[in-house]
Amino acid sequence: MRIDIITVLPELLKSPFEASILKRAIEKKLVEVHFHNLRKYSIGNYKQVDDYQFGGGAGMVLMIEPIDKCISELKKEREYDEIIYMTPDGNTLNQGISNEISLKKNIIILCGHYKGVDQRVRDLFITREISIGDYVLSGGELAAAVFCDSIIRLLPGVLNDETSALTDTFQDNLLAPPVYTRPSDYKGHKVPEVLLSGDFPKIEKWREEQAMERTRQRRPDLLK
Amino acid sequence: MRIDIITVLPELLKSPFEASILKRAIEKKLVEVHFHNLRKYSIGNYKQVDDYQFGGGAGMVLMIEPIDKCISELKKEREYDEIIYMTPDGNTLNQGISNEISLKKNIIILCGHYKGVDQRVRDLFITREISIGDYVLSGGELAAAVFCDSIIRLLPGVLNDETSALTDTFQDNLLAPPVYTRPSDYKGHKVPEVLLSGDFPKIEKWREEQAMERTRQRRPDLLK
Repeated sequence: MRIDIITVLPELLKSPFEASILKRAIEKKLVEVHFHNLRKYSIGNYKQVDDYQFGGGAGMVLMIEPIDKCISELKKEREYDEIIYMTPDGNTLNQGISNEISLKKNIIILCGHYKGVDQRVRDLFITREISIGDYVLSGGELAAAVFCDSIIRLLPGVLNDETSALTDTFQDNLLAPPVYTRPSDYKGHKVPEVLLSGDFPKIEKWREEQAMERTRQRRPDLLK
Repeated sequence: MRIDIITVLPELLKSPFEASILKRAIEKKLVEVHFHNLRKYSIGNYKQVDDYQFGGGAGMVLMIEPIDKCISELKKEREYDEIIYMTPDGNTLNQGISNEISLKKNIIILCGHYKGVDQRVRDLFITREISIGDYVLSGGELAAAVFCDSIIRLLPGVLNDETSALTDTFQDNLLAPPVYTRPSDYKGHKVPEVLLSGDFPKIEKWREEQAMERTRQRRPDLLK
């Protein structure tokens, strides 16, 4: 899989891709991630990529021309399955979307910033708009990092133990059951006995009940 | 405001806090953010912070003892309004929660990792559990960065133009209207004429209609 990220703040994205699972996935060549600084495609002497919005109002808007230039250059090199714009008014990301996008070959992710991008960018180039949740961030960069993390960890070979992703919360529309590790008694607070019993069918049953109970209490909407 | 973040991967969090708005807010002393590497509180010679889960199964679990030590040390120094655990089965973050937490003085954020933390940590120390959305990430670090960004940009003085945050998507349960910037004609694709009219009451009315229409089409759930 290849991911091209277009942003005015590539430096913000540095450390998430240089640590942990994303780093390992890139090193193992399971995914390629390329950052494109929008300023490289800016117009005029001032490296301008944003401007005031027509009609007045607070906040700057990313201009169409640099984005058009950047996307066109990328498209000359290869075909893209999706050109995704990260924006709080996009489709809300869920595990199903992450699963789906993780099967694509080449995608472009455009990070919004300030008040967003010129609407014509959305109308002309974008194939899909994604929001990571109902809250506003200073830019689409962290949203892009979150989205990439949710996809990349699903690529075969990225997680050491593939069953680990399958037992995650949301993969079966249930929240995960509680987990415990050593010590079995911490200052009088004990681990549920069943988990120490060695009786695996019983443990499995307990976990299913706990997952169901937790989902019923916290997220009844997932059970519908 | 003071935010203490407890994590096994402080290096992952570096760049988001060293760029853009978060950096500026920290430099202006509008917020203090401190990272605490859980390994500093690890037990034994191996700097162990995680262990296999009781009852078997894939994925490691963060142990209670190092977390207890770290939280206890922080609590000796000051009182905390909230000790928040980032986890996909927590309450789903929305703008209302961000608004609320942005008014607190001192908070601790604990980042989950691997299969999560020992359930006793959640039972004994955590005051609130937050999820940034219905998808699984490799760890709570990016979720913590997203959460901090959504809070910090609301602190007075952080955004240059305070009206900018107030007109964001979600602050009034409506999505934001489309925005446009120069040029007014890009390869034949034109900006809506009303925005170039200079008639501000008319522009305001158009924006309200567009916001309502966009919300009705994309997120009718917000209008309920």
